[in-house]
Amino acid sequence: MNPNYPRDCWYVAATSDEVGSGLFGRKLLDRPVVLYRLESGEVVALEDRCAHRGYPLSKGRLEGGLLVCGYHGLRYDTAGACVGVPSQPNVPYGVCVRAYPVREEPPFVWIWPGQPGTSSLHSPPQLPWLSGDGWSSSGTTVCMAANYMLVHEHYLDLTHIPEVHPEETPPGLEQLPPLDHVAVSETSVTYTRTLPPAELADWEAEATGLPRDRKYKRRHHGTFISPAILAEGWEIDGDDGQLYEQARIHAVTPESPTRTHLFSRFAHNFALDRALVDQHLHAVMAKVMREDVAVIEAVEATAGYEGSASGIHLIADAGVLQVRRIVARMLATETGRTSAELDRARSGRLSASSTRLRASPGRQPRLPRCPRW
Amino acid sequence: MNPNYPRDCWYVAATSDEVGSGLFGRKLLDRPVVLYRLESGEVVALEDRCAHRGYPLSKGRLEGGLLVCGYHGLRYDTAGACVGVPSQPNVPYGVCVRAYPVREEPPFVWIWPGQPGTSSLHSPPQLPWLSGDGWSSSGTTVCMAANYMLVHEHYLDLTHIPEVHPEETPPGLEQLPPLDHVAVSETSVTYTRTLPPAELADWEAEATGLPRDRKYKRRHHGTFISPAILAEGWEIDGDDGQLYEQARIHAVTPESPTRTHLFSRFAHNFALDRALVDQHLHAVMAKVMREDVAVIEAVEATAGYEGSASGIHLIADAGVLQVRRIVARMLATETGRTSAELDRARSGRLSASSTRLRASPGRQPRLPRCPRW
Amino acid sequence: MNPNYPRDCWYVAATSDEVGSGLFGRKLLDRPVVLYRLESGEVVALEDRCAHRGYPLSKGRLEGGLLVCGYHGLRYDTAGACVGVPSQPNVPYGVCVRAYPVREEPPFVWIWPGQPGTSSLHSPPQLPWLSGDGWSSSGTTVCMAANYMLVHEHYLDLTHIPEVHPEETPPGLEQLPPLDHVAVSETSVTYTRTLPPAELADWEAEATGLPRDRKYKRRHHGTFISPAILAEGWEIDGDDGQLYEQARIHAVTPESPTRTHLFSRFAHNFALDRALVDQHLHAVMAKVMREDVAVIEAVEATAGYEGSASGIHLIADAGVLQVRRIVARMLATETGRTSAELDRARSGRLSASSTRLRASPGRQPRLPRCPRW
Repeated sequence: MNPNYPRDCWYVAATSDEVGSGLFGRKLLDRPVVLYRLESGEVVALEDRCAHRGYPLSKGRLEGGLLVCGYHGLRYDTAGACVGVPSQPNVPYGVCVRAYPVREEPPFVWIWPGQPGTSSLHSPPQLPWLSGDGWSSSGTTVCMAANYMLVHEHYLDLTHIPEVHPEETPPGLEQLPPLDHVAVSETSVTYTRTLPPAELADWEAEATGLPRDRKYKRRHHGTFISPAILAEGWEIDGDDGQLYEQARIHAVTPESPTRTHLFSRFAHNFALDRALVDQHLHAVMAKVMREDVAVIEAVEATAGYEGSASGIHLIADAGVLQVRRIVARMLATETGRTSAELDRARSGRLSASSTRLRASPGRQPRLPRCPRW
Repeated sequence: MNPNYPRDCWYVAATSDEVGSGLFGRKLLDRPVVLYRLESGEVVALEDRCAHRGYPLSKGRLEGGLLVCGYHGLRYDTAGACVGVPSQPNVPYGVCVRAYPVREEPPFVWIWPGQPGTSSLHSPPQLPWLSGDGWSSSGTTVCMAANYMLVHEHYLDLTHIPEVHPEETPPGLEQLPPLDHVAVSETSVTYTRTLPPAELADWEAEATGLPRDRKYKRRHHGTFISPAILAEGWEIDGDDGQLYEQARIHAVTPESPTRTHLFSRFAHNFALDRALVDQHLHAVMAKVMREDVAVIEAVEATAGYEGSASGIHLIADAGVLQVRRIVARMLATETGRTSAELDRARSGRLSASSTRLRASPGRQPRLPRCPRW
Repeated sequence: MNPNYPRDCWYVAATSDEVGSGLFGRKLLDRPVVLYRLESGEVVALEDRCAHRGYPLSKGRLEGGLLVCGYHGLRYDTAGACVGVPSQPNVPYGVCVRAYPVREEPPFVWIWPGQPGTSSLHSPPQLPWLSGDGWSSSGTTVCMAANYMLVHEHYLDLTHIPEVHPEETPPGLEQLPPLDHVAVSETSVTYTRTLPPAELADWEAEATGLPRDRKYKRRHHGTFISPAILAEGWEIDGDDGQLYEQARIHAVTPESPTRTHLFSRFAHNFALDRALVDQHLHAVMAKVMREDVAVIEAVEATAGYEGSASGIHLIADAGVLQVRRIVARMLATETGRTSAELDRARSGRLSASSTRLRASPGRQPRLPRCPRW
């Protein structure tokens, strides 16, 4: 299938601890990318493919702040410009690899794989649950064999919980109730659901320390923030005046049309001084994630995303259907802009993208643009 | 290559002992199928792909005679109709998966992957050698990497025996004699061959208990019964008034254009009270089958079916060539009917298939037809 | 990608010691080939695919100088003609597999995969360094996952040495100097480079026994002889009147557009009586080859040949660019001839190839030409 992911979007490229002093190569949105960290701590992301013969730069080395290709020794600066060729005195004009805008907001390193020069018009979403302020969080990263939309759609419709995670479902809850509400903005979708009072699942009891012999109210909500991020909340009303809040953040980054990186984080705002609660929740969520991945990969293997998306719709799919519309609109905008630029280029006028770049308040590309991207 | 197998044919889906109380998923003629057995003993075959998101139903569970999808809990009855969706009060109109007609005649479970509503016009072939009445039989099942026609053509031309199975060839028989006769009907091909007197191969001596110091006459014959079944016979004239008959039944079910399920059964009508003979013949035939599979897979890997079928013809290929004609005619009929239906559908008239269904004496589909199949 | 290798060229099919008394199958230029040696020592190369069903002949056996197919026992002579079919008295007219012209010049067995009947217009290149006359040589064979031109281009631009083989680079030589000269003929390219005086790398010191405390002049040169052969020389001026010459011969044979057989040989003309030097150089060159293969396969995996070839050009690519022109010309000639023949065939005139064959001084095909090749 053709790629079905918008490119004009901040995606998570890696977790902060994956990018150390060495070179880290990863395929993101069909492109090989090499990530590394400067002495200043700043993270750099370059096309992982030398402009000369296509050797992966991530197999080279860092030398005095320059990235040296491991094949013929071409040297690149942090903007992707080739600044040295050992076998000749001068660098041919304009040799470069693409440099990607990067922003680090721990625990994530974000990348902008879209139209150059427009990244500053957008910002990675704020994820306060992961910043440590009143919350404790941990996470797991996997690369799974499925289209990224299968991941979003999995988490947008949690009526799978009783079937896929029966041990983690509150006892007596044979099914999740319908959504209370689906709120849709131009770029996001939020759903909320109030659960009928139910006893605690084991993991909830161990995490909260609440008495098991009572029933508790719960609220479950989720937000598709962008094609890169889905955030879920699971709140237990402790009946002691305390709200036990838990958040799952799914950072979803397409590798290819049939493979997806999932950076999963789990946060909670209670028992912050008890390390055992952290460890317990981490183990439970890692198990839940393995079960999720198995289901999502089975759908990809049996039906693929297009087959899955052509299935029948249920009431519980309200959020899924809204998200499909948003993504389709983003894709149409990107395709339309590309077509419009081609038309203008053919007629000899200034391209829309040049015009837009000039008007943009953000930083401009420092180099002649590489024609290959 | 395109699929070269007729769909309007009863194929073996599984052996009876493969379908127990659990869910059994298998790909048959390019379609995922889930098989299970009701308490009544009846076998059900449904499309192995939930109508909602495409999750394989074989990863779900049975509950009170209903098949429950392991993803969002949709419930299906034995006709493939969705009769329950946990997350909402009613089932949307017409939600279903395809149900396949099934017939069990041990040791085989047969399936009809063809045009719905026409299965009752046909019956699975009778295979008396496997019914236990005067015969003892056993078998082996494999899934091999080859087109199903390579399997048929392998067994339609047994002049490979001296090269592929030299240990099982009667001593002195350096080659098989030409066929005596090839009889062709509209849908089947039968060949017969009389072998010159020869001593016993080891396996023949051990199975029959006949003295080794004499030469015996043999008759070898085979019948292509349908694209799903080829039956072979190997008779030794014991010179003691007894005919030692052996039958090999090859149930050939395409998984895809390059993979084939082979349900191989071997039967004999003598020494029925001697278990050691059964065990010995089972071991010999399992070895022979491994040698067959290796040869057939080597042809697929080197030439593929189309390459193999474009080779030169020998006299020994008389049966093969007749079978190719039969299969080509079956495929043309299916394609032609499809084209004719399309033409009629476009011109607004009743479709040929509807007309035929109305006239059919067999059972009608109980459900609105799923539009996806 | 489409094959980008000329077929009208002698390629190395195997090393002499690979072809013993058994059958040796190998895929060469997209075709399966079986090689074997007659009692006379002569090597035969036939299409490794029986004319009947496509079974690989290399899985058969030799019997009295004939190659017997392991499936139905068809017998082929050394010209590829089928001379026996066990299941029938006569061989159908014209049944054959393609026989390839072969020449053995140890350590290599050469094959002509091109237009039949024209092999005698060409000869495999002379490789005196490997004939043992004043030289000692050894080698290693691998099949790597890369287009054959990536192998040529790797060895045509040795400015990779300091990055890829830093341990084998003479100390102080951080980079190779530019080429002195690139000489181009219609079919070959030769480059030469003079290195500035430098101390000995470990492997050079151990091989030559020269004192380490001095600097030595070196000359490095290479020749693209044909799409099948690249020869490199590395000479150390011993300052004692002796020139320590070493040669690396890369025999490059495409298996498919993305896989290549590399028959690598290393020769030296000094210390011929010291086996330890041989062993040492063999080990060093095997290590160097592993490093080369890793780099070339990484380029194939990241960019493929077309992606790699569309990269920017450096001064060091002078030889590479000339070779690309030669190969493009060879491919255009082959394509053009094929087109011209087709045109003539359609208009009923004698084909260009027939005319050329009649005028050719070489041996003629003994058999009717197989139509499949």
